[in-house]
Amino acid sequence: MKSFMEIAFSEAKLAFLKDEVPVGALIADRKGQIFAKTRNKNRELNDPTAHAEILAIRKTCKELKSNKLFGYSIYVTLQPCEMCLHAILNARISRLYYGASDLENTSLQKVYNTISKNKKFNIEIYSGINEKKCSDLLINFFRTKRIKS
Amino acid sequence: MKSFMEIAFSEAKLAFLKDEVPVGALIADRKGQIFAKTRNKNRELNDPTAHAEILAIRKTCKELKSNKLFGYSIYVTLQPCEMCLHAILNARISRLYYGASDLENTSLQKVYNTISKNKKFNIEIYSGINEKKCSDLLINFFRTKRIKS
Repeated sequence: MKSFMEIAFSEAKLAFLKDEVPVGALIADRKGQIFAKTRNKNRELNDPTAHAEILAIRKTCKELKSNKLFGYSIYVTLQPCEMCLHAILNARISRLYYGASDLENTSLQKVYNTISKNKKFNIEIYSGINEKKCSDLLINFFRTKRIKS
Repeated sequence: MKSFMEIAFSEAKLAFLKDEVPVGALIADRKGQIFAKTRNKNRELNDPTAHAEILAIRKTCKELKSNKLFGYSIYVTLQPCEMCLHAILNARISRLYYGASDLENTSLQKVYNTISKNKKFNIEIYSGINEKKCSDLLINFFRTKRIKS
């Protein structure tokens, strides 16, 4: 059986095929029921907010008819950007698991440090899940882009 | 004729009437053509990402069939939160005008300081437009909430 991160990775691969930045996400409840598996759709939807995480949150909240996701977990193949991280916090998601880290973005790392030290943000964060696979997909995507341009 | 912030304020008042946190937004191009006027719809849409700014960006990008809004301005009655500020930056909006400041959120003020010092973020930010009016509406809203609870 595929792990949640592997399912999110399949979504990221689909995004790659559609010429979108290859990031996938999945939201599941405590019992392991999946509520959303989504991929980045910035170009497809002409929407700069259509990152995989935002789409997953919107889908899950719509289904649950709630704008709070206490107890839910989100799996993302890439460390969420500032916008998505704060969407995850706004949605009160309890656990964030991500694959590749966005180490080039040093200000993002500072935000994560602040959040992990501040008890106001009631979230557990786990990094490096299937990291190499998730990271390689992104590296390949941007390499292809550079060759094309 | 109403100013752009006054139109955004009318949206905020509508949000108040619908029992949503009263924040309104408007996006216009260089020539002053309005592309979106929106209000916070977290409860109505069961969507924690449905802040006025995100809805305005999504609407404008959809209309323009573009996920970048170079040269556009956004007017918001309340200082955008971290999620919305980064959505505005992701959308490459050129100018942000806001009314009330969210002074209680000290970490947010630090984010704004960092952004205004970093030339990578090519955005002009203007605060305090119709500040008292925008702020009073929010204060009244939360006062009503406290009385009810």
